[in-house]
Amino acid sequence: MALAFIIITKNNGAGAAQNDVVLPVETGTAQPQNNANARFLDPDDVHPGFLRRQLPADAPSRPELDAFGAALRDVRDLILPGLTHWQSPRHLAHFPASSSTVAALGEALTAGINVVPFTWTASPAATELEMVVVDWLGKALHLPETLLFCSGGGGTLLGTTCEAILCALVAARDSKLADIGGSRRIGDLVVYCSDQTHFAFRKAAHIAGIHRDNCREIATSRDDMFALSPAALRAAMRADADAGLVPLFLCARRWAPPRPPPWTPSASSAPSRQRTARGVNAHKWLLANTDCCALWVRAPALLVAALGTEQEYILRGAAAEEHGGDVVAYKDWSVTLTRRFRALKLWLVLRCYGIEGLRGHVRAHVRMAASFESMVEADARFEVTATRRFALVCFRLLPPEGKLEAANELNRRLLEEVNAAGSGPYMSSAMVGGVYMLRCAVGSTLTEERHVSEAWNVVQDRAASLLRKMENTSSTAACTA
Amino acid sequence: MALAFIIITKNNGAGAAQNDVVLPVETGTAQPQNNANARFLDPDDVHPGFLRRQLPADAPSRPELDAFGAALRDVRDLILPGLTHWQSPRHLAHFPASSSTVAALGEALTAGINVVPFTWTASPAATELEMVVVDWLGKALHLPETLLFCSGGGGTLLGTTCEAILCALVAARDSKLADIGGSRRIGDLVVYCSDQTHFAFRKAAHIAGIHRDNCREIATSRDDMFALSPAALRAAMRADADAGLVPLFLCARRWAPPRPPPWTPSASSAPSRQRTARGVNAHKWLLANTDCCALWVRAPALLVAALGTEQEYILRGAAAEEHGGDVVAYKDWSVTLTRRFRALKLWLVLRCYGIEGLRGHVRAHVRMAASFESMVEADARFEVTATRRFALVCFRLLPPEGKLEAANELNRRLLEEVNAAGSGPYMSSAMVGGVYMLRCAVGSTLTEERHVSEAWNVVQDRAASLLRKMENTSSTAACTA
Repeated sequence: MALAFIIITKNNGAGAAQNDVVLPVETGTAQPQNNANARFLDPDDVHPGFLRRQLPADAPSRPELDAFGAALRDVRDLILPGLTHWQSPRHLAHFPASSSTVAALGEALTAGINVVPFTWTASPAATELEMVVVDWLGKALHLPETLLFCSGGGGTLLGTTCEAILCALVAARDSKLADIGGSRRIGDLVVYCSDQTHFAFRKAAHIAGIHRDNCREIATSRDDMFALSPAALRAAMRADADAGLVPLFLCARRWAPPRPPPWTPSASSAPSRQRTARGVNAHKWLLANTDCCALWVRAPALLVAALGTEQEYILRGAAAEEHGGDVVAYKDWSVTLTRRFRALKLWLVLRCYGIEGLRGHVRAHVRMAASFESMVEADARFEVTATRRFALVCFRLLPPEGKLEAANELNRRLLEEVNAAGSGPYMSSAMVGGVYMLRCAVGSTLTEERHVSEAWNVVQDRAASLLRKMENTSSTAACTA
Repeated sequence: MALAFIIITKNNGAGAAQNDVVLPVETGTAQPQNNANARFLDPDDVHPGFLRRQLPADAPSRPELDAFGAALRDVRDLILPGLTHWQSPRHLAHFPASSSTVAALGEALTAGINVVPFTWTASPAATELEMVVVDWLGKALHLPETLLFCSGGGGTLLGTTCEAILCALVAARDSKLADIGGSRRIGDLVVYCSDQTHFAFRKAAHIAGIHRDNCREIATSRDDMFALSPAALRAAMRADADAGLVPLFLCARRWAPPRPPPWTPSASSAPSRQRTARGVNAHKWLLANTDCCALWVRAPALLVAALGTEQEYILRGAAAEEHGGDVVAYKDWSVTLTRRFRALKLWLVLRCYGIEGLRGHVRAHVRMAASFESMVEADARFEVTATRRFALVCFRLLPPEGKLEAANELNRRLLEEVNAAGSGPYMSSAMVGGVYMLRCAVGSTLTEERHVSEAWNVVQDRAASLLRKMENTSSTAACTA
């Protein structure tokens, strides 16, 4: 019954075309404020408290008649109209939370199986499938072999990058404290990133007990395409060492689009090459559904030393005793004991799309972003504000001459108006080096060329209107003066 | 197609009887070694590496014909036979990972909707539904009103207790460091628990940078039913304060069954009553499917101060600007930015079972555990080793007189043989104060009275056989002597 409620649009079945996805409704709009599908909820009513006010203050004591049906009707009438539709083809904000029919069915299957693979014994096939798929994905991404199980490294599937960074950091922290002796020197540890690094890194470092003053954000510049400067990094590390501090960890990325939040595959590594970790969010661009973040490490023993709970040998089971290092207990690779069987959906995606299918999926989005970028570049009223590497285009409207100081405010208003447009796109923003810019992040499963060009038409239309208004205000001001 | 593969057993529809659950197969057994349903995989082949050896070393470049169907056949033939079936009615090990049709359909719906509610704007209805259900659940559990949104506190749905404890600890840590001045004093902070506290607490404290030597495990005794002694706690805190250290956090439980791992609702709180946090795993006994852990705090501002990333104001959106404190940005309440829409399934469960339905579900398991306990008590060869409070029975086989030193080894063998029995139960173990004991944790959705009594029959049968063997060995030894 619930499943009938999930409308599968453009489902081409097993082979899985790029546009196949599970959606609860045909998502016409990206923003709750604009949802043309809202049936009973007035879109204008979506403001803080709108849903809380409509639901009872207490859970029912006993279920009403046909409770599930009634709840589904509320999903349709109250909840869906109040969601921001990340699966809309016009969702170009933040980052893609890409979904596929295959991964959604994988989630359903996982929910039905509902095992908790915290050790090998707690669900052998779940643990081993995880080992298989992280090696599969690592090879497909051309990661160094040393990060794969088949070469002494290994990976795991966590929920998010935030968690992955935290695990890698804690492992690096403990290893360094063991090296320098005296684990009370945690206050001396220093971590490094660029001023373009996602805030998840600073947050993870803070959680791990690294002093907030000991997180160095190396300045980048637009001239260097916001890349981290090795010279600046070396200088910062030397200065810290001279001051008696201890350089611990560098969070680097393979490329540097303006920051909040990066949705391209990211990589982080410790300064020592022997202790590298890398991460990729398969739930962002790889159709694996939220959540699914792969973390690979070169030295799993460091993770286990930091996060393992070897005193709880009772959980290990005979298999681990007999096979020693061959048996992975994933509870020792992450923050959590309870964990989901995420490998199943990622394995289904890899099998049903194939590496070439996923490459095609990613390349199509990159092509669409390139096309959006060309349209921006062809319009002299706009500028592309950061070099596009993949499918993220950062751009802004240039204010009329003599009004450069108004640029940020103008673009803020532009974004507001674009996002408020009837069936327009939903975009987000970034602030880099004092410059406010719009972000068009292509990557939703259902996004096609036409959605991107329609989005550009909306941007142009709203920009023209805003510039006209500025012009009129100036004329009026001139007349009045 | 995938969904047809999920067999819904005893599905009574919306009203949702206690036994309704989604299972991928009729789970006849709890252990992979014993799986009578294995069709193509020989159960004896489930040892480390069994699955990795059977799967290709690389992901396919292009999907095979009918890739999804082929993958599902592999799920049936290779993966399911190699799982530990947590949803089996004979799974009495570790803790229940309780599932319901309603929650599993909720997961499927969530996977289809696939929104990322990190701020209110990022999905208003998802954020508000989370606020509603944590208040609903908190009221149903009779939590202090100060922990509810309706009274200035508030809650969130995280993945696991490990994550919840970490969040509460980091908030307490930062608040204390601000109080005492000088955040470099992190090495002086001391946390407290009992020697029965789950290792998740020590792990979370370690991740948060609390020195491993600064985690005090207050000794408990069987005479006190393993309860934490307030006098011992006070003495430990006083000693630490006298030594110049700073007492920070107490992880307490509402009751104290022997440890690994506690699956009853647990509560943790800071020494100061003003800063209490509580947590409950709805995915354990409350039919909400893995994962779903509710965390409530009395002072959300402390969480936000520690985990918030207010500098990223770009993510906040106009609604937050306008409504200030009324708008919850759940990214600031947890470790992660990306998060799942867990509220939907919990809301469906609460609506479709009602509070009375969930109470009945829990009470039925408590009754079954009481019945198991009575059977243990009625057999003089056994003893109940810890007071049963809810649905966990800890017990052991007493060795023949004069062989008390053999008790642990005897019970280790007993557990092995019980778990190896053809269609027997799957139990786990604990070691408390040097005493090894078996744990019978009743709580699987499908478990009925008969499964518990059948489990006891298997235990009795294997115990008799072991005792006979010991007797024979003794006789032989005596004869030989």
